[in-house]
Parts: sequence; structure tokens; C-alpha cells
Amino acid sequence: MPTPNPVRELPEILRPVRAEMEQVGAILRGEVEQEAEALRGMLAYVARFAGKRLRPAMVLLSGQTAGRMTGDHLTIAAVVEMIHTATLVHDDILDDASARRSLMTANQKYGNEMAVLVGDQIFARAFVLVNSIPSRLASEVLTRVTTVVCTGEMLQVHHRFDFSISEDLYLRIIREKTASLYAAACELGAAFAGADRAGREALHRYGLDVGTAFQMVDDCLDLSGDEEVVGKTLGTDITKGKMTLPLVHFFRTAPEARRRAVLDLLEREGGREDKKRAVRAELEEQGSIGYAEERAVETVEGAKHHLARFPASPARDALAELADYVVHRTM
Amino acid sequence: MPTPNPVRELPEILRPVRAEMEQVGAILRGEVEQEAEALRGMLAYVARFAGKRLRPAMVLLSGQTAGRMTGDHLTIAAVVEMIHTATLVHDDILDDASARRSLMTANQKYGNEMAVLVGDQIFARAFVLVNSIPSRLASEVLTRVTTVVCTGEMLQVHHRFDFSISEDLYLRIIREKTASLYAAACELGAAFAGADRAGREALHRYGLDVGTAFQMVDDCLDLSGDEEVVGKTLGTDITKGKMTLPLVHFFRTAPEARRRAVLDLLEREGGREDKKRAVRAELEEQGSIGYAEERAVETVEGAKHHLARFPASPARDALAELADYVVHRTM
Repeated sequence: MPTPNPVRELPEILRPVRAEMEQVGAILRGEVEQEAEALRGMLAYVARFAGKRLRPAMVLLSGQTAGRMTGDHLTIAAVVEMIHTATLVHDDILDDASARRSLMTANQKYGNEMAVLVGDQIFARAFVLVNSIPSRLASEVLTRVTTVVCTGEMLQVHHRFDFSISEDLYLRIIREKTASLYAAACELGAAFAGADRAGREALHRYGLDVGTAFQMVDDCLDLSGDEEVVGKTLGTDITKGKMTLPLVHFFRTAPEARRRAVLDLLEREGGREDKKRAVRAELEEQGSIGYAEERAVETVEGAKHHLARFPASPARDALAELADYVVHRTM
Repeated sequence: MPTPNPVRELPEILRPVRAEMEQVGAILRGEVEQEAEALRGMLAYVARFAGKRLRPAMVLLSGQTAGRMTGDHLTIAAVVEMIHTATLVHDDILDDASARRSLMTANQKYGNEMAVLVGDQIFARAFVLVNSIPSRLASEVLTRVTTVVCTGEMLQVHHRFDFSISEDLYLRIIREKTASLYAAACELGAAFAGADRAGREALHRYGLDVGTAFQMVDDCLDLSGDEEVVGKTLGTDITKGKMTLPLVHFFRTAPEARRRAVLDLLEREGGREDKKRAVRAELEEQGSIGYAEERAVETVEGAKHHLARFPASPARDALAELADYVVHRTM
């Protein structure tokens, strides 16, 4: 990102929930242990995809911000992470025609067939685990949000290589496929801490905005990020024909001849690296990456406004800083 | 199968629950309607995989056999069918290396990526739907059984082309991947009809036996069935290296030279049809298909014994006849 990074490192931001995050990690490891011995290694392997664990952190910080954290928060945080991990594993399933990725994804390591089952198993275990919570609310919200995530992802695949989609449709898709799980995480954090309806709603909106901004930044990183830093193969959105915010802006604003030039680049067979570099140059010239970065910044500003109704606390500050982290991250 | 078919056609057997089966169909159609408009067609398409709807029928008949059917039975029946459909869609996801099938599976029609999402969506909608039942038992049993199904399927893939597996391991795998869902269907049918613990247990065991026999027969049909009648590509177990009961028997009993001959056939590159014909000839000579058919018949005899504790009724008769249907079916 062009702006200097005013945000602390993630472990610093998450300090108010450090102990709880370790407990969530223990729950997640315990879930792996429940699998048949021959299969545990695979579940443990994909658990390493987890990375930053932003979503569980948001469950916990939302709880602290809105009231008192409970044991249920730990379970919900683990379940949210499991749902996220399952979608990651399934996102990597390849079509026969798709290019191989340079990373060892679950499907590369174990085959598509096994990767499908590993993802299914994580989903199913998540829904068993959430049933251990006495109140049924968490199960209701998290099963429902999973249908929303799936609809968003299906719409995204449905509109692959569809370069005429509006920014409204783009926003609908990323709210569903990405932001809805952040929103559910924050809302449940609030609800289980005893927040009233307005408090739940405020944290739901905070999560929705942060998740939306997160995806916008992800879109930009796929074009302009450093693979070494981000830790995953980039340029795959382009290869897969996914519509990202920079592309939506470009195809809305660029003159016909340049739109056609980029269209040719996107549809041409060829190496991911070269394609990415060429598309990036075009989009940078059009200001489309800058536009998407600005929209992400505006969106997290909105997110932070939703925190104003809660009393000042280290957790509330952490949520505000997390919002900034999401747009200023380089990975 | 070699024995004459003493069993009536399925619609005749299911007559006691015909009206309820139509209501279950309406619930399933209603689930499709809830999807985003652009995506409904896909969910409707895969709903057509449903076929015989044996599992929902077992929920309803178990309810009638053990007590009184309720509205919850209809919901559970729909959820069980959705879980089954989701696993079917995901079973058809191909590895890059796998042979194409001759049928239009979801992955062929929509690509692997979309087929994964369609299956995920059906799972997620099933778990939302089951949450509409006031008692939490159905959600608990059906999320848990989904983890069991996944473990069974993962073990099966894990042991692909592993021709030394014991019949015990084979039985564990098919109980988990196939029979457990039948058992859950029957047990929940009993539980929601007010059956006591022993009644639930009896129908659980009935379902486990019927499901086990069902899979044994499926194994035989994959080798010796008529594709036109069965309505799906056969010989795929062999192509995919799945261990079936005839193969388990063959590799336990055949002399070394003939084991090696079949191993060569199984591991050789080549057409599915030719491979199937050659393997079938070897297994028939060894009596391995007959052995598996006998085991299936013994297993449904066991299933029927579990029905003895319930008062005679058209539903109980239907369950007994369904057990016979499962082994005498040719499709």
C-alpha cells in the first residue's frame, strides 16, 4: 500500500485476548485429535493454513468490547476458524483445466478427492462442536452464514470472466463470500457477552465493513502484493477469471481500446506471472488499484464508527486497530 | 442377483408413507427455491440425483413402526436426503488423473470448483433446516453422523489400491461411509415417534444392517450390474482403486498367481469396460461375487430380526420388505 504503515504488528494488537487465543488453539488441536489416526495428519496439515486467525480474534474482542467473555466465546471462535479453514481447503480444489499452483495446497498434496473430504470433515466437525454450546443461537447463526458464504462463492464462480459486473454486484458477492463470516463472528461475540440488540447490530456492521475491506485489500494484493510476504500464490484471481474491485473499476472507466487490451490479456493462455505483470501495469495506469485501496480505507473508517457506542476499553481499541491493520497489511 | 426377485416394486413397498414422501419432496423443492436465482438451476439439477429416496423413507417408516409420525419426521427425512445428495455430488469430484465418466455428473456439467460449492451449500442448508426442529437431538445426531460418513470416505480414499485390507477394515469403512446415515435415519425416526431407548437402538441396528447390505450389493453391481438398468457408470470402483467386498474376498482366498493377474489388471492403464469384464471373470471364477451377495443376504436377515420387538403394522412390514429390496435390487 502507498501509505506508511501506522499500525502495530498483529500479536501486539491482539494482546488483550492473547490467553484466550491460546485456548482457542487448544480447542482446534483437540478437534484434530478426534479424527481416525490414519487421517489426523491431514487435518493437522490444513490447520496450518489458518494464518492470522483474525476471525476468532474478532469473536473474543467483540465479546470483551460488548460485555463479558464466556467459555462459549472460545468455542465459537474455534468454530468460526474451522468454517474458514474448510472454505480455504475447498477454494483450492482445481478444475482439470486450471493451472497448477506453486504452493502445496491440500488438493495437490492429497488429490482433489481427498481435499473435498477433508474440507467436508472440517465443516461437519465445526457444526458438531457448535452444538456443544447450550444456547442454540451460535449454531443457527453459523449454519446460516455458511449458506451465505457458499452463495457468494457460487455467484463468484458463476460470474467468472464476466467483465461487465457492476460494483453493486461485486459488493454483494464479497459481502456474502467473505464479510458475512466476519459479521457473524462479531455479532456472536457481542450476543454471548450479553449485548442488547443494538450492540449486536453495531458489531455485526463493524464485522461486515472490516470483512468487506479485507476482501478489497486481498483483491489488490493479488495484483500488486509480494508473494514472499503474502505467503501464497498471487495473480490467481486473474487466472481464474475472478472479478476483483480493481478490475470492476477498470472495466467501468477505461476507454474501449484499453479495455479490449486487458480482456485479451485475461483471456489469453499464458504464464500467471507475465499475465499478472501486464494486467497490473494497465490497472495502475488507470488508477484502478488506487481506487480499490481508497474504497478499502473508506470502508474501515465506516467500521470504526460502529464502535463508538461501546465504552472505551483495550478490546475496543484493539478492534479499531484491527480495522486499520486489515487495510494496511501487506500480507 | 441369481435368486428370483420375490420383492415388489419400490413404490408398492413405500405405499404406507406415500403422502408423507410427497411432503418431503415439497420440502426439498422449497430448499432449492431459497437459493439465489442464478444458482437455483444447479441445485435443482443435483436434486435429480436423488433416485430412490430410501433414506427418507426409512425415517418415516421407522417413525410409523415405533410410534406416531410427526411434522419433525418430514424435516428429518428431507435433511437426511440432503446430506446424502451432498455426499453424492462430492463423490463425483475428480482428480486430474481420473478417467472421465460417461454420465453428466455435477463436476462435468459445472466444473469441479462449482461442484464442490454446490455440495457445500447442500450440506449447509441441511444443517440450517435441521435447526428448525425444536428438539436439538436431530441436529446433534445428523451433524455427528456426517463426521462419521466423512471419516469412512477418507479411510476409503486412504486405502485406495491397498489390496491387503481385512474384511474387518472393509466393514468398518462401509459402516461409516454408508450404513451410519441409514442407522441415523432409522434411529431418529424412532426417537421422534416417542420410542424408548431400546426401540431407538433396535431401529439403529436395523438401519446399520440394511445400509451395510446396501453397500455390499452396490459393490457387486459395480462389477456385474447392467449400466442401462442401474443408471450410472459401473466399474468405477475398480478404476478408482476402491476396495469392495468381492475384491477383499478374492485377495484373501485366491492363489498367488491369480491374485497377481488381477492386480495387474487393476493397476494397468486401460479402458474401464475391458478392465471390468476381465476382473469380473476372475472374481466370478473365485466365487467372490457370490460370496459378497451371500454376505449381503445374511446381513439383511439380521436387519429384519431387529424389527421383531415392534407391533405388527404395514410400516413394519414395509421395513422388512425394504431390507429384502436392498439385496434383490438390480439398480
